[in-house]
Amino acid sequence: MKLLILNGPNLNLLGAREPETYGTTTLADIENMLTERFSEVSFTFFQSNHEGDLIDRIHEAGAGMLDGIVMNPGGFTHTSVALRDAVTSVKTPIVEVHLSNIHAREPFRRESMTAGACIGLISGLGAVGYELAVRYLVARYAEDARGADE
Amino acid sequence: MKLLILNGPNLNLLGAREPETYGTTTLADIENMLTERFSEVSFTFFQSNHEGDLIDRIHEAGAGMLDGIVMNPGGFTHTSVALRDAVTSVKTPIVEVHLSNIHAREPFRRESMTAGACIGLISGLGAVGYELAVRYLVARYAEDARGADE
Amino acid sequence: MKLLILNGPNLNLLGAREPETYGTTTLADIENMLTERFSEVSFTFFQSNHEGDLIDRIHEAGAGMLDGIVMNPGGFTHTSVALRDAVTSVKTPIVEVHLSNIHAREPFRRESMTAGACIGLISGLGAVGYELAVRYLVARYAEDARGADE
Amino acid sequence: MKLLILNGPNLNLLGAREPETYGTTTLADIENMLTERFSEVSFTFFQSNHEGDLIDRIHEAGAGMLDGIVMNPGGFTHTSVALRDAVTSVKTPIVEVHLSNIHAREPFRRESMTAGACIGLISGLGAVGYELAVRYLVARYAEDARGADE
Amino acid sequence: MKLLILNGPNLNLLGAREPETYGTTTLADIENMLTERFSEVSFTFFQSNHEGDLIDRIHEAGAGMLDGIVMNPGGFTHTSVALRDAVTSVKTPIVEVHLSNIHAREPFRRESMTAGACIGLISGLGAVGYELAVRYLVARYAEDARGADE
Amino acid sequence: MKLLILNGPNLNLLGAREPETYGTTTLADIENMLTERFSEVSFTFFQSNHEGDLIDRIHEAGAGMLDGIVMNPGGFTHTSVALRDAVTSVKTPIVEVHLSNIHAREPFRRESMTAGACIGLISGLGAVGYELAVRYLVARYAEDARGADE
Amino acid sequence: MKLLILNGPNLNLLGAREPETYGTTTLADIENMLTERFSEVSFTFFQSNHEGDLIDRIHEAGAGMLDGIVMNPGGFTHTSVALRDAVTSVKTPIVEVHLSNIHAREPFRRESMTAGACIGLISGLGAVGYELAVRYLVARYAEDARGADE
Amino acid sequence: MKLLILNGPNLNLLGAREPETYGTTTLADIENMLTERFSEVSFTFFQSNHEGDLIDRIHEAGAGMLDGIVMNPGGFTHTSVALRDAVTSVKTPIVEVHLSNIHAREPFRRESMTAGACIGLISGLGAVGYELAVRYLVARYAEDARGADE
Amino acid sequence: MKLLILNGPNLNLLGAREPETYGTTTLADIENMLTERFSEVSFTFFQSNHEGDLIDRIHEAGAGMLDGIVMNPGGFTHTSVALRDAVTSVKTPIVEVHLSNIHAREPFRRESMTAGACIGLISGLGAVGYELAVRYLVARYAEDARGADE
Amino acid sequence: MKLLILNGPNLNLLGAREPETYGTTTLADIENMLTERFSEVSFTFFQSNHEGDLIDRIHEAGAGMLDGIVMNPGGFTHTSVALRDAVTSVKTPIVEVHLSNIHAREPFRRESMTAGACIGLISGLGAVGYELAVRYLVARYAEDARGADE
Amino acid sequence: MKLLILNGPNLNLLGAREPETYGTTTLADIENMLTERFSEVSFTFFQSNHEGDLIDRIHEAGAGMLDGIVMNPGGFTHTSVALRDAVTSVKTPIVEVHLSNIHAREPFRRESMTAGACIGLISGLGAVGYELAVRYLVARYAEDARGADE
Amino acid sequence: MKLLILNGPNLNLLGAREPETYGTTTLADIENMLTERFSEVSFTFFQSNHEGDLIDRIHEAGAGMLDGIVMNPGGFTHTSVALRDAVTSVKTPIVEVHLSNIHAREPFRRESMTAGACIGLISGLGAVGYELAVRYLVARYAEDARGADE
Repeated sequence: MKLLILNGPNLNLLGAREPETYGTTTLADIENMLTERFSEVSFTFFQSNHEGDLIDRIHEAGAGMLDGIVMNPGGFTHTSVALRDAVTSVKTPIVEVHLSNIHAREPFRRESMTAGACIGLISGLGAVGYELAVRYLVARYAEDARGADE
Repeated sequence: MKLLILNGPNLNLLGAREPETYGTTTLADIENMLTERFSEVSFTFFQSNHEGDLIDRIHEAGAGMLDGIVMNPGGFTHTSVALRDAVTSVKTPIVEVHLSNIHAREPFRRESMTAGACIGLISGLGAVGYELAVRYLVARYAEDARGADE
Repeated sequence: MKLLILNGPNLNLLGAREPETYGTTTLADIENMLTERFSEVSFTFFQSNHEGDLIDRIHEAGAGMLDGIVMNPGGFTHTSVALRDAVTSVKTPIVEVHLSNIHAREPFRRESMTAGACIGLISGLGAVGYELAVRYLVARYAEDARGADE
Repeated sequence: MKLLILNGPNLNLLGAREPETYGTTTLADIENMLTERFSEVSFTFFQSNHEGDLIDRIHEAGAGMLDGIVMNPGGFTHTSVALRDAVTSVKTPIVEVHLSNIHAREPFRRESMTAGACIGLISGLGAVGYELAVRYLVARYAEDARGADE
Repeated sequence: MKLLILNGPNLNLLGAREPETYGTTTLADIENMLTERFSEVSFTFFQSNHEGDLIDRIHEAGAGMLDGIVMNPGGFTHTSVALRDAVTSVKTPIVEVHLSNIHAREPFRRESMTAGACIGLISGLGAVGYELAVRYLVARYAEDARGADE
Repeated sequence: MKLLILNGPNLNLLGAREPETYGTTTLADIENMLTERFSEVSFTFFQSNHEGDLIDRIHEAGAGMLDGIVMNPGGFTHTSVALRDAVTSVKTPIVEVHLSNIHAREPFRRESMTAGACIGLISGLGAVGYELAVRYLVARYAEDARGADE
Repeated sequence: MKLLILNGPNLNLLGAREPETYGTTTLADIENMLTERFSEVSFTFFQSNHEGDLIDRIHEAGAGMLDGIVMNPGGFTHTSVALRDAVTSVKTPIVEVHLSNIHAREPFRRESMTAGACIGLISGLGAVGYELAVRYLVARYAEDARGADE
Repeated sequence: MKLLILNGPNLNLLGAREPETYGTTTLADIENMLTERFSEVSFTFFQSNHEGDLIDRIHEAGAGMLDGIVMNPGGFTHTSVALRDAVTSVKTPIVEVHLSNIHAREPFRRESMTAGACIGLISGLGAVGYELAVRYLVARYAEDARGADE
Repeated sequence: MKLLILNGPNLNLLGAREPETYGTTTLADIENMLTERFSEVSFTFFQSNHEGDLIDRIHEAGAGMLDGIVMNPGGFTHTSVALRDAVTSVKTPIVEVHLSNIHAREPFRRESMTAGACIGLISGLGAVGYELAVRYLVARYAEDARGADE
Repeated sequence: MKLLILNGPNLNLLGAREPETYGTTTLADIENMLTERFSEVSFTFFQSNHEGDLIDRIHEAGAGMLDGIVMNPGGFTHTSVALRDAVTSVKTPIVEVHLSNIHAREPFRRESMTAGACIGLISGLGAVGYELAVRYLVARYAEDARGADE
Repeated sequence: MKLLILNGPNLNLLGAREPETYGTTTLADIENMLTERFSEVSFTFFQSNHEGDLIDRIHEAGAGMLDGIVMNPGGFTHTSVALRDAVTSVKTPIVEVHLSNIHAREPFRRESMTAGACIGLISGLGAVGYELAVRYLVARYAEDARGADE
Repeated sequence: MKLLILNGPNLNLLGAREPETYGTTTLADIENMLTERFSEVSFTFFQSNHEGDLIDRIHEAGAGMLDGIVMNPGGFTHTSVALRDAVTSVKTPIVEVHLSNIHAREPFRRESMTAGACIGLISGLGAVGYELAVRYLVARYAEDARGADE
């Protein structure tokens, strides 16, 4: 099973950036944790501060090369119609994840433009949120496989 | 470890109610699934259509009798300041769960009054969302225990 | 044919409460009037100031025990997503009734959260509104019966 | 007793126009139904796509030539201050009727500019709504007559 | 003179809940303080997390059994049309009290749906607010008595 | 000098309609008053409940046949972009008049869509407002004439 | 092929009215240009300042007498629900055209109430916009004809 | 008859300030014009850039020393609740005047906080607006006098 | 103990101004009442229609010459950021008082810009509100004194 | 004549992406169609998911190397001030095109941030929209050439 | 060169007031710093809590006695149309300065009513902001002088 | 001392683009001016139309390689949460600069999403704004150095 862990702007600074909000875990820590816990999954990790790069990567998923995406669109979450359209453009299941609880922050962070196009949202559970999103996609993949077998 | 699975109005009809939105899994199915998968957890299951009952139950948690709550406040999610205050009133960690993706529905369902007072939100992942929320609370409980040991 | 006449908060005070807005007819007067005029209907009358009680009663209707509901949700009309969800959760036809003309009152009374989930709305026609709503449900029931016969 | 059944823009197409929303009953069907059921009432039927024509007709009612109006202002419902003023300008009781449930449609249809000036509103009950509105006006007329006799 | 001190959701946790906002005085402390200072008043104390219970109690007041109510509706303050209607339904003078200054808190707490139906509002003066509200009702009662004597 | 006195919907009922708001003076009274006081002006009086008729008349003015218009657009004031465009389409000076003070009425009457395209607005001065508007146009006409002479 | 070119309020003044916004081309110029360029099309040209007249004409199209409409609703664009309903009421393809770029003008002109019910919108391309709209309808008609042939 | 001509902030610069909006007539010119044309009126002229001074002057009017006020509140028009309250506090008839057409200017100038408390508004007619407002007050005074005589 | 009773615009007219809203008690009556009831307090009474005067007085309090302020900012309540800043600028405890219930009046009076910077608000309790506010400040002063003693 | 056909995010997936909304025509199909029909035009085709790339290309146009642009900014349409500024920065005529009717879609798609800076907009006419936009630019170019010749 | 340094309400308390927001530098410190650094400039320093005083001073500038103004309008920044009009009324260049970063504070402080009428705004740079504003005005003055020489 | 001068979309066209708004000074002119005036500063100049490039550059600053940034985010100012987050992610002091006065332009330009995360804002002072921002950062750097020395 192939999954893409897609992180948007400023998440490369995770661990260093505003630790009182985002904690001290780095993005590499999260990637290592996922690789360790899900040995059955082949992960691609991609982070970019460029909206277009994120869209390009989602399109590749749409080309049938991926079985799911965990996406943290960072600051693009709240405004990017283009990213939302990219999510809608592909059939790959996508789960949106946020480290902090977006409903407990500034008003402009309380709405997600992209989440409505995803399957669902996990917000506020820190790095564990990534793990849970992968777990969901693994379970869904297994269930689809079972369905195809019958 | 003791957890409360708290479900709000109309969730007693799960499986029968609007299956195109909420699926055919019943609340009993979810409760059985949780009991099976988390043998180390002692669950209390409570559903009510009465806002006051939900608040009363959260208060009991605040009295130190529970180690966490998974809460699906149903229709109270979007308007209940009283329920939000109940969440804030107790120290017990609470995770909000929604079966459907609230960001993909009618405008009045896209905001959560209660989620900002919880630790976080899982939305749109169906019955799996309950499992993931429990998994988060179990992991957090284990980590807190480790922290207390050291 | 079995109908539920469901009245929400403060309607128990009808006749005594703000008579310049709501008239001097009591809820008992309305219930007697309905019983007299519709001898072919078996009525259940229920009034409560508790949102949860109203939801519980609608669920009973959903369990196939009723052929229709005339509902005046009182103050819950304008804010209760939970009550709206209850209406959507059941297949029983429900007509919303208001004694006063909600479009002629304070701005916060001009929108109905629940009416969009009901079949329709009768507002401003006083106690006669209940009679007309019953008449609609009786006609619809007869038509359905005719349809089933053919 | 003399009643005017006043229909606004596009209602001449009833039965042909968007049958999934408005049904297949034509305006003539409704008019025949009313004539049959209320033999004691002398009806005038008027439909126009011209706002000014509707206002002119309401003014005639104000001249004492009518005992009531059932009005479906169609698309003028949501914006016409002029029509609202016409309703306020006359003493004749006017009931607003909509075939579809305006609270269940697009946001711009959920508010009625005219209903606040009428006695009340019946919405979502299809062609039956006209019948119920007439029934209300007949009952009111009878009651007024009784009041005048005493 | 008979007064009801009516407290809404989460106020049972007063003293324990968010002490940085609400202080460490408990509801029992407040009740004792009132009983001590106003020996001429017969108090009923009632707290509930159930909106319907609060409405029921206000209705009892309307039945002539009380000379005034001091009401802190907690989280219902900002949204409950039903509670507002209950206040309007009775003639008993009602004063709304808030421990914290609602104008200095989150935007959704800055408006009161219920205060406009009460005689007035005391907000931000802590437990003293209850005392002042009682003092107002006692003074008003005395004045009414004087008026009745003349 | 030729002036058009243009009155919109429901102003034909002036004197009879809502006298507590609009007074008992009829439109004919106003027209007679103007004819008497301004013997040097040749008046055309036109009232219609049809928006299109009002636009047609303004266009005639644009054709150079009139030296000014006093316009009371009635209920069209608050919403008619078409009428506003008609005013902009012609060079004839137009003064908007309202009998009642629109700033002291319902929120939807407090804005004028058309006034921004006119030279100015007189509101709340009753029938005298028409006289003052004519007086303004007469003075302006005289000044223009003087300017042309020099 | 039969097409209706339908123009709304104030477009009769085209060429004379606000030439800095709308240019000096007259409506007759546009009609001549269309007739010349599309010899295979039988045009009906209709302009009115009366909303009802425009609706009546669209209804005629619905009666199967026309193969398409190019509509410039003028000032009715931004507010007329009735006109929008007329568009929805008929199956004839309708393209909305505006001479000026409505997105570059006053805020109240930036939204179109009617465009959402049409097939599409051409705005800001001057008189050429009419030509392009006709071209679209001709192409669509040809394609439909080809589809019917196969 | 005694009238106060009350001008608010920046009107002392009239004639020099933004002549393309306000013209080149000075405040002294307006005062002279009024004195000349209304020899029967005893005028007080007062201009201040201080909100409190304007309120003080209106209060003096309330003390019965004046028969009317023509008020141009300048920039206070759009925001001053205090000035509105001053107008409401006195019985003296007050007419609001604006030199420019406030409905044709920036959005924040299109609403008047004070006009709703005055008798009416004259806007956009330049210096003539003052003359017309005085004319209204003189006519009203004469009528009141006639009424008192009978 | 030294207290300032600070009254804003139009409160000098109390008793004469809109008695149906504000009663017939004058400001002098209130001042006398306070002086009589609180013999242990040295009062300064100050009323002004000038925003700047009120700010100056609050600054004097900040200079340590006063132990508390009871402030009724009148019409400045709803808009004055400057007055709010003055309240924040000083450490003196300030209680805001309104004679009428601001939550029961026009929309623009329902929000207070200044109350969020004060300790709290008393609204709708008439002249008694001043007494209660003083009582609060006296109690607080006593408590502070006790605290300082220990 | 040189034209740039500029397509924004997700348009590379055209034909595959949401065919029920966007049809099955691919971007290559559109490009071929344009090349065939307009043999007199030298086309550059450019698509990117990167906002910056689109801006860079528009700037090249501004450098005098292009005679016009047909731009479909995809999801950037609704939010990108930067793209709007790029359009304003160059003198090259630019026409905005949308395949679907943006006025008939989700609220956040109904406004275009960029269209107000373009010459005009064609929306909802599918792939034909590109053809019509080119046709407009060709006609305009010819006219400009004629103008330059004279 | 003559400059006015104009400070609005509460800035007299600078250094003492909310030092965590505004720092401990006093207004006198700022004035001394400016006098020292700009020996070529003749400064007038003026602070007032009275809006009218600030307007009066700006008018003096308009009378040609000043070459520029640095203005910190304090709390008047966000609401005062009168102050904005004063800025527009004079030709003297005016730069608005705020000590704190208004974009990082409460919502009601994030908009400036007055800045749009000034040349520009410096916000958040503390006392240095005044120095930079003076530096701008000095540079501009020098440039104008150079321009006049040529 | 090392400073980055960071310019966003369309600023590469400065001098050529909309000179009536932005002047004729080019970006190279500004860069030369800064280099000349601040010989003690080592400048890096960077302009990009790509949001991601700007974020990348700010991150480099966060890596300790820069002592300050002067940033003009161009059109990203008003919408980019990602850029705001980048500013918050680093400790380097950042000053936002705009050539034109954003408070005097279109409504969508009057708010800055990014300024609230910067130290402050300089707007409307043209190219001088860059110089003043550098001057601020130099002064701050010197002060910090002094503080470190002590």
